[in-house]
Amino acid sequence: MSVALIAIDWGTTAARAYRFDRHGHILDRTSAPLGVQKVAAGGFPDALRLLLDGESEDVPRIACGMIGSRQGWVEAPYRDCPAGFTAIVSALTPVPGACLSIVPGLVCRDAAGVPDVMRGEETQIFGAFDEQEARDGARQVVVLPGTHSKWALVDAHGIETFATFMTGELYAVLLEHSILGRNVATGSDAAALEDGVKRSLDGDASLSHDLFSARTLALMSKLAPAAVGDYLSGLLLGAEIAAGRRWLERHAVKEESVTLIGDAPLCERYRRALAIAGVDAMIGSPDAAARGLWRIARHAGMVRT
Amino acid sequence: MSVALIAIDWGTTAARAYRFDRHGHILDRTSAPLGVQKVAAGGFPDALRLLLDGESEDVPRIACGMIGSRQGWVEAPYRDCPAGFTAIVSALTPVPGACLSIVPGLVCRDAAGVPDVMRGEETQIFGAFDEQEARDGARQVVVLPGTHSKWALVDAHGIETFATFMTGELYAVLLEHSILGRNVATGSDAAALEDGVKRSLDGDASLSHDLFSARTLALMSKLAPAAVGDYLSGLLLGAEIAAGRRWLERHAVKEESVTLIGDAPLCERYRRALAIAGVDAMIGSPDAAARGLWRIARHAGMVRT
Repeated sequence: MSVALIAIDWGTTAARAYRFDRHGHILDRTSAPLGVQKVAAGGFPDALRLLLDGESEDVPRIACGMIGSRQGWVEAPYRDCPAGFTAIVSALTPVPGACLSIVPGLVCRDAAGVPDVMRGEETQIFGAFDEQEARDGARQVVVLPGTHSKWALVDAHGIETFATFMTGELYAVLLEHSILGRNVATGSDAAALEDGVKRSLDGDASLSHDLFSARTLALMSKLAPAAVGDYLSGLLLGAEIAAGRRWLERHAVKEESVTLIGDAPLCERYRRALAIAGVDAMIGSPDAAARGLWRIARHAGMVRT
Repeated sequence: MSVALIAIDWGTTAARAYRFDRHGHILDRTSAPLGVQKVAAGGFPDALRLLLDGESEDVPRIACGMIGSRQGWVEAPYRDCPAGFTAIVSALTPVPGACLSIVPGLVCRDAAGVPDVMRGEETQIFGAFDEQEARDGARQVVVLPGTHSKWALVDAHGIETFATFMTGELYAVLLEHSILGRNVATGSDAAALEDGVKRSLDGDASLSHDLFSARTLALMSKLAPAAVGDYLSGLLLGAEIAAGRRWLERHAVKEESVTLIGDAPLCERYRRALAIAGVDAMIGSPDAAARGLWRIARHAGMVRT
């Protein structure tokens, strides 16, 4: 079966390549620890050859993610929201001499004019929705958990706006470098996760105060060393969900359900936390990035048929 | 002039000793980098000798701060709030063989029963208030900026309750270990500090979202590398002040002014941030810890006259 498109989800730590046939089926997939942070300046042509294992340059190639950032191969400038396929396609950035096009990231601005950005998630969102379904339906809420979680509003015209929450990075940095990680043991504790989520949901939205309870509860032997991590994760998740809901309210969305896209165990963790807040969550396709790259490439007329 | 009391403010990184005469005047002061984290197990007797430079053991000694924590010399268990001089004095913990008494920390619980703790700040608070003034006046609000900032409610009976905000530690950890510290230059920028405070005060209390603006504004060249630190500081300060006010409202306090106690430049930074929020702040004595130790010792009958 001949290859019609090579799609690369090229992030900070890893690069994942997918070969598509002309019907949009994934023929095979490969990945390598060749993320943007792992490749030295000038090393991207070699990294691409290594990743694709000498694949002919005749096949069109498209990539999304941090490869288009200032630290990547070629900068693909952010496009303003709202943005649909047409806006994305018109901003595809070619890499000179590499037979490769890079999908731009998106920028939106809040009421105060403060910008927010995504890069890579726009492609996952475009991959997660059936276009017919989007044309028929109302606005949908997509949540992409991660180092910098994104909440996005999507309608038939594309991505309307979005908001970032530093949930994953705060979790990692606080556990590794702050007093909250002191005397912590590895382990998981579903009840502690739930307690953390509830505290943030029921509280007065003061994260810098609530976080300290991970220390005091441990100090008072109310939280076992192996439960601190999940309690902290719950506090941060609850704060994200509470703030995400206020953000949706400001955009006149009364959410009944959200679609989660991302790493499967992390999506499951978010699904449990959202359930505590009374929000239904559907977990979307794990191949959202590949599917999004396929759709963008088809809209751009890049796919051989 | 003979020494009537030796008072030691013994914290995590440093120990500060004060010699008092019998009238409560400070005769001299000395400090050493012999904080609890710097002294190896079993090393406290030597650290004390070094700090006091062979001062006779005949003089009564009192200490507050992390020296009474589980990681300190002898654990002085937390006392429940509300707590006045009588409660503190009855919980002074003697160090066997060292002619030294340690002031206990305090614990309070919020409506959900979640504990909060302080250790050392209780002594600063007792040192900051004139007792006569406290007997006459209404409840007062004391703010102690630091790694873990404290907001406390104080009345004639002592410390009623308090709340911790991890402002200082979040600032340090995020600047050093998160994406927010990337491409940052040292420097100060009063306008950026003000912008950060306003964003947190005007926003919807989503710190994990607002923090990301320190990244996006820098990315869009709206924030200079040397201004990121002060903007981040402003975001965290504004979030603390907004949450502190909600906490005061829950305790039926309509604050008109607060007293700041602590490091002078940090208090000045808080004063500016509080002014943006319309709150007057008076900066208290820099010798609050020494003054508090003196008063507690006098209430305990420890002072030679």
